Amino acid sequence: MTVRNLIVAQSGGPSCAINATLAGVIEAAAKAPEVERIIGSFHGIEGILYSDWIDLTGKADKDTLDKLSATPAMALGSCRFKLPSDYQDMIYASIRERFLERNIGYFLYIGGNDSMDTVRKLSEYFALVKEREPDAQIPVIFGLPKTIDNDLCGCDHTPGYGSAARYLSVTVRELIKDTEIYSVPSVTIVEVMGRSAGWLTLAAAMPRFLGEKKPQIVAIPETPFDEVAFLAQIRALHKTTRSVVAVVSEGIKTADGKYVGESEQSGTIDVFGHTYLSGVGKYLERLVKHEIGCKVRSIELNLMQRCSSHLASKTDIAESRAVGAYGVQMALGGHSGEMACIRRKDGEYEAYFSCENIARCANAERLVPKEWQDLEDPEVQRQIVSYLAPLIKGQAAVFADEYGRADYIDWLKDAKRCKKIILF
Amino acid sequence: MTVRNLIVAQSGGPSCAINATLAGVIEAAAKAPEVERIIGSFHGIEGILYSDWIDLTGKADKDTLDKLSATPAMALGSCRFKLPSDYQDMIYASIRERFLERNIGYFLYIGGNDSMDTVRKLSEYFALVKEREPDAQIPVIFGLPKTIDNDLCGCDHTPGYGSAARYLSVTVRELIKDTEIYSVPSVTIVEVMGRSAGWLTLAAAMPRFLGEKKPQIVAIPETPFDEVAFLAQIRALHKTTRSVVAVVSEGIKTADGKYVGESEQSGTIDVFGHTYLSGVGKYLERLVKHEIGCKVRSIELNLMQRCSSHLASKTDIAESRAVGAYGVQMALGGHSGEMACIRRKDGEYEAYFSCENIARCANAERLVPKEWQDLEDPEVQRQIVSYLAPLIKGQAAVFADEYGRADYIDWLKDAKRCKKIILF
Repeated sequence: MTVRNLIVAQSGGPSCAINATLAGVIEAAAKAPEVERIIGSFHGIEGILYSDWIDLTGKADKDTLDKLSATPAMALGSCRFKLPSDYQDMIYASIRERFLERNIGYFLYIGGNDSMDTVRKLSEYFALVKEREPDAQIPVIFGLPKTIDNDLCGCDHTPGYGSAARYLSVTVRELIKDTEIYSVPSVTIVEVMGRSAGWLTLAAAMPRFLGEKKPQIVAIPETPFDEVAFLAQIRALHKTTRSVVAVVSEGIKTADGKYVGESEQSGTIDVFGHTYLSGVGKYLERLVKHEIGCKVRSIELNLMQRCSSHLASKTDIAESRAVGAYGVQMALGGHSGEMACIRRKDGEYEAYFSCENIARCANAERLVPKEWQDLEDPEVQRQIVSYLAPLIKGQAAVFADEYGRADYIDWLKDAKRCKKIILF
Repeated sequence: MTVRNLIVAQSGGPSCAINATLAGVIEAAAKAPEVERIIGSFHGIEGILYSDWIDLTGKADKDTLDKLSATPAMALGSCRFKLPSDYQDMIYASIRERFLERNIGYFLYIGGNDSMDTVRKLSEYFALVKEREPDAQIPVIFGLPKTIDNDLCGCDHTPGYGSAARYLSVTVRELIKDTEIYSVPSVTIVEVMGRSAGWLTLAAAMPRFLGEKKPQIVAIPETPFDEVAFLAQIRALHKTTRSVVAVVSEGIKTADGKYVGESEQSGTIDVFGHTYLSGVGKYLERLVKHEIGCKVRSIELNLMQRCSSHLASKTDIAESRAVGAYGVQMALGGHSGEMACIRRKDGEYEAYFSCENIARCANAERLVPKEWQDLEDPEVQRQIVSYLAPLIKGQAAVFADEYGRADYIDWLKDAKRCKKIILF
């Protein structure tokens, strides 16, 4: 048996669950006799290039891994780094050298669509190396999924989505209560993340699908948005109810494919003379104010939907951790250029994992299916509940004291790049 | 013993705790032999004028009151209604008539500064009635405090503040983690409620006062805000750290007393041709973008800071409920024209209640004391922690199923005004 080292890194936008996947990787790697040292690369692939890393071999105790699983954002930091398409580029040789220096046999990259592009390119590069130099020792490059957007192809759902969905469902329910107290008509517009896919907005609409009357309006990017119909719907609703609640994806588009409020004309000129495109929520707020004139408020759920670990889903955190461990098994088995996917068995909810060729997952987006786009259809609503409810089920452990102070893992403070003075 | 009826109503902005105070009122009134029926007036004083009310006499069971205490916003609805200053106005005679019709002996009004103005005026009006007609049966008018803003005079703190503070402290801590993942410099501006008083922003700064390094910048309305100094502070911080987090009150003002970003010049002209004054967070975001040019994001915590019952403080909910019961005792004892206050004993945290003359509480605002305005002073930070920590202590009960669906009390659906078609 050849004993080699394993390197793990995180990339893209954070979530409540990406550290659980890291915990799963550390846990499984610590038990694997094929793995000598577990190295965490800070700031994704950048840490490999800059030799900025942390030795995680001794950090596989239960307490550390449980706390890590409950820590939001990314314990190893993130990067937005796109590898060049040209495999002759110096950067590839440099990564290879770094891997050889450290006797790396396995590289696991936890991230979304863009990060899977890195997995694809690195695995293709090393396959070319192997063709050219059959005796070369090349590492296994394996992708682990992560995105609150739930838009990775090949997956039933993605790690991080369930926790964001739980946050959205609980928060929108509370907001609905808040909007109902006045006796005057009002409109509340809740802007939800999701530039291309409406998965998070479906979660924000869960109070309605679970039996409430609100949110009455649900707008996802997959269905063209019509401002005139939106205003007409509000006017019609105000005939029988005071409080109208709309949940809208940040990425809703008009029939001609433009983002709502995207055109320069619909932006605003700020005091500094810049055209300023506010979010779609603010844009619709001004539209309703102007056209209807009633009490109107927009609410952007912003980063809270991806970092609210205090509302993380137990199912999501457990699956995210398990998929990390699965990734280590697959990497040890030589599955290079693949990504782990969470799948679902038919019948009662049960998840299992599979490997997908990375080319299928990288740079592609899985949208809300066409069959689900009539959100007023009770059968569609039933299917959405049956899809979503198991994912938001249960409250994940929170390591907080009686003052709500969570005991987070903070490895990033040891990153060299954090200490460097970078600027301007 | 004269047996009379009690009427209770809610007014002003909602919170997580105002229903707990209502629960305390119902609980104590149900036990009082002097009270025959407990009437809830919908939409504050408006429900009295429009005879829109609910009989709460049979709703004093433990299960209902516990769920009511965990329901955000206002089970009886709110209003923004200012009584006229002229006690000859028809409206006063009309209220008196409604009270006589229903044999009302006690009126308890739960609200903030503006609502206490209603309590003051009604009690003064009825005192005049008594002077004029010594045999007239006049009701006791009693105020119960409520405001997340924590700005009611005579109180150590107000019901609702502790829960909002717990939400802010937990959420800002999670946001800090989220901001730390990138290797590029960034500024995150968190806008917190509080038009005049900085109490909520102090709560948002709790992660720092409790030992974190962030938020590094804390701006409250009581201290003049200087844009040049703010930018200089960010530049200085970026020399040693990447992520700068600022928590700012929505009501911060410049040295000349104007709200930051208030002037028409600093507003924006929207697509509809209107001048649009965005919140201070968005204004500062654009300022940083323009002057420093780094990654910058503003986050408005919006209604979530007042309705997030899933993070309500156990201390706050318990005290809010107890103060409602105290209010009933005081009303039965004839304390008209007074408001209940939560006070604090010296030494180990212990709360008690007292009555204040309503004239002291109505229309006045209690600001963060001058001695606390140097937020960089470790002794000030220690005092703030000692003040705030007990108020956010413990997680209040949440009646939610495994999908996070809370079982809320919904009495408002029976309000007549909710069924009326009001509009345009």
